[in-house]
Amino acid sequence: MLKTSPDAGKLSRRRLLTATAATAGGIIAPPAVAETLADVPPREPGDDLTAYSLRSPYVQIARIPEAAPGQRNVDPSVAINSKSPLDKFLGAITPSDLHYERSHSGVPNLDPSKHRVLVHGMVRKPLVLSLDDLRAMPSISRIAFLECTGNGWENWKAAPDNVTVQHTHGLVSTHEWTGVPLSFLIDLVGVERASTWMLAEGDDGAAVARSIPLTDEIIAEGILAYGQNGEPLRPAHGFPVRLFLPGFEGNLNIKWLRRLKFGDQPFMTRWETARYTQLQTDGKARQFQLKQDVNSVITSPSGMMRIKAGYNRITGLAWSGHGQITRVEVSTDGGTTWTDATLTGQVLPKAQTRFQRDWVWDGRPVKIVSRSTDDKGNVQPDRASFIAQVGTNALFHYSAQQTWGIDEAGSVRNVLA
Amino acid sequence: MLKTSPDAGKLSRRRLLTATAATAGGIIAPPAVAETLADVPPREPGDDLTAYSLRSPYVQIARIPEAAPGQRNVDPSVAINSKSPLDKFLGAITPSDLHYERSHSGVPNLDPSKHRVLVHGMVRKPLVLSLDDLRAMPSISRIAFLECTGNGWENWKAAPDNVTVQHTHGLVSTHEWTGVPLSFLIDLVGVERASTWMLAEGDDGAAVARSIPLTDEIIAEGILAYGQNGEPLRPAHGFPVRLFLPGFEGNLNIKWLRRLKFGDQPFMTRWETARYTQLQTDGKARQFQLKQDVNSVITSPSGMMRIKAGYNRITGLAWSGHGQITRVEVSTDGGTTWTDATLTGQVLPKAQTRFQRDWVWDGRPVKIVSRSTDDKGNVQPDRASFIAQVGTNALFHYSAQQTWGIDEAGSVRNVLA
Repeated sequence: MLKTSPDAGKLSRRRLLTATAATAGGIIAPPAVAETLADVPPREPGDDLTAYSLRSPYVQIARIPEAAPGQRNVDPSVAINSKSPLDKFLGAITPSDLHYERSHSGVPNLDPSKHRVLVHGMVRKPLVLSLDDLRAMPSISRIAFLECTGNGWENWKAAPDNVTVQHTHGLVSTHEWTGVPLSFLIDLVGVERASTWMLAEGDDGAAVARSIPLTDEIIAEGILAYGQNGEPLRPAHGFPVRLFLPGFEGNLNIKWLRRLKFGDQPFMTRWETARYTQLQTDGKARQFQLKQDVNSVITSPSGMMRIKAGYNRITGLAWSGHGQITRVEVSTDGGTTWTDATLTGQVLPKAQTRFQRDWVWDGRPVKIVSRSTDDKGNVQPDRASFIAQVGTNALFHYSAQQTWGIDEAGSVRNVLA
Repeated sequence: MLKTSPDAGKLSRRRLLTATAATAGGIIAPPAVAETLADVPPREPGDDLTAYSLRSPYVQIARIPEAAPGQRNVDPSVAINSKSPLDKFLGAITPSDLHYERSHSGVPNLDPSKHRVLVHGMVRKPLVLSLDDLRAMPSISRIAFLECTGNGWENWKAAPDNVTVQHTHGLVSTHEWTGVPLSFLIDLVGVERASTWMLAEGDDGAAVARSIPLTDEIIAEGILAYGQNGEPLRPAHGFPVRLFLPGFEGNLNIKWLRRLKFGDQPFMTRWETARYTQLQTDGKARQFQLKQDVNSVITSPSGMMRIKAGYNRITGLAWSGHGQITRVEVSTDGGTTWTDATLTGQVLPKAQTRFQRDWVWDGRPVKIVSRSTDDKGNVQPDRASFIAQVGTNALFHYSAQQTWGIDEAGSVRNVLA
């Protein structure tokens, strides 16, 4: 399960030492403190333990809630996101309070003791479920990513070069989700065999509602989630209960879930007719493009960072709605040649996977880019092929390779190539 | 990897329906709202999105910092713990701010730009490393539990019956840890072949320091961790860098790591002579009992809860420092007969694993208890066998089965049996 190559250490050490020798300094410094126990500085008792482990005041890490000046960010006419700072993350799990947020009319403050979920339509036994009912049922837990359908949409046409990876890719996060298997609920209410679609409706002001096809994959993997990273959902993520469909576009994962209705055709809500459709090159709109494709991005070095010549560690995140990441390659010459990166954590299906690669930068301008492959054989396309195939009318499901340009000064910038 | 039984849903549904019929009510309620879209209540925009996703005001979840009245909890003469509320957790990952805390002189507030780690002793090339140095090196991420050596120690002799599972077992948590493989550092500094022990020293007021044997397992799995659940360590957990040794007693996982010294024998610090030794039945003390054994506990129903007759879902957590949990059994007759529980998440080695079992309680007094097995064949012992083997002089490494008694009123109490 631990997929790190046993050779990674030795290779890296050799490169580190080479890099250090080359730059005459670097990480190999002479010991600056004595090598004895006598060098222990005076030490005093620290702070009391508390009810919560808070962050160090030295750590600055936050999302950026987006709204135009003078607008509340609940205004449905503006983009309403809080993007995750991928450039500051370590590992693959997203910190509990930094999972990206996206909503269409702000975050409702729901009382869990009053909240109910209606399950009806083509079922033998319609039910109204309280949160206590749901928590009494069998549960499942799963670590998986969630990605906004619109993640990366700035790059469809002409994103500026002065953006960070938080801006370009910050609408994807990975948590452990816990709740009732959708299959259990389908069995409990006795969904009719003829039912092929399910309407899920949220209890937010925008009443977001989507039609979900009852595929084998969705029935097997769907969760009515009430837990997130070990605790009850937080309000921005759908408290007290949301739908979680691993690998499927964020908008389908209805937050503040209020209702599931089973039917035999899609319900054609405005969220799948007027919105969340994909405009094709021929001017027609494609509906129900639901799966998040294989994707990856280098998070360091990334947009607006500044690096120094010599040894640099390239690291980033890869994910696929189709399954498990099997390979990430990195190019430091704009996609001409590629080297396998090391996957540095536990590789889980439909979860973000961290990769890294050693790199000694010679100080000349370069372009760095990553390319991921999943266990279904999907390979992340370069931007030119991607655009050639789907055009630039679309807004959603952007998953082309992300190129970062680095100039002589070491400044890293977004490059649409 | 997903170890949930495909039969779990069907079995549970039948039992739920049976239980419901028996109690004439329960979760199967008639629909209380109309089955049409017209029943949507008036809805208003919710709260703005923010930089952090905070908890719902309806969710009460916190640790309990322990200190006697009038004492600061940095006082080394008192137990200094903040225990995790296992009874309120969902899934297996511990919420980022609720990982248990344990320290011997409070939490130092270290400036990462000034912090250094000295690596010296029996090495070819002693080094002083900054946090930037460490973060430039190859990294590894791993989801694993950490458990205080003293977890459960109240139960060695005579714990009161009016305690919660937060009190009895709250010194174990599971996070994703990210940092530099210990093997890489050993290679980098060129540890001599004759070195068999490593001293790790913290930068806290108590200067906690421990000798760590350089076993194959520790070299292969040890991490100089700077990341925790996706973000920099929090101060209470060792910011900016700690040692993380999956499966080994918490006290070895030195926080605020300041120094690693390699030698050819244990360094005999006070933390392994005066403390953290295990007093045997014959009055002799056992040193270096380092591994956390196979363990489990039912977290619901658990101490101080009150349940109702009829359908109840039993759920809990299991973990082993020796490897992966392969089986958890649950008894509802005080250990006379056992039934396999379902493992409800992704089962990872040396990580907490959630289990559950359906149960219909007939309202008569019972004792419920869980028993876990790991992939090395270790089986969690009952308390009588455990005490018979190790006596009651000991303080650490308590891992016997936890029994909860339930009386006619449905009150759940700690039982030492």
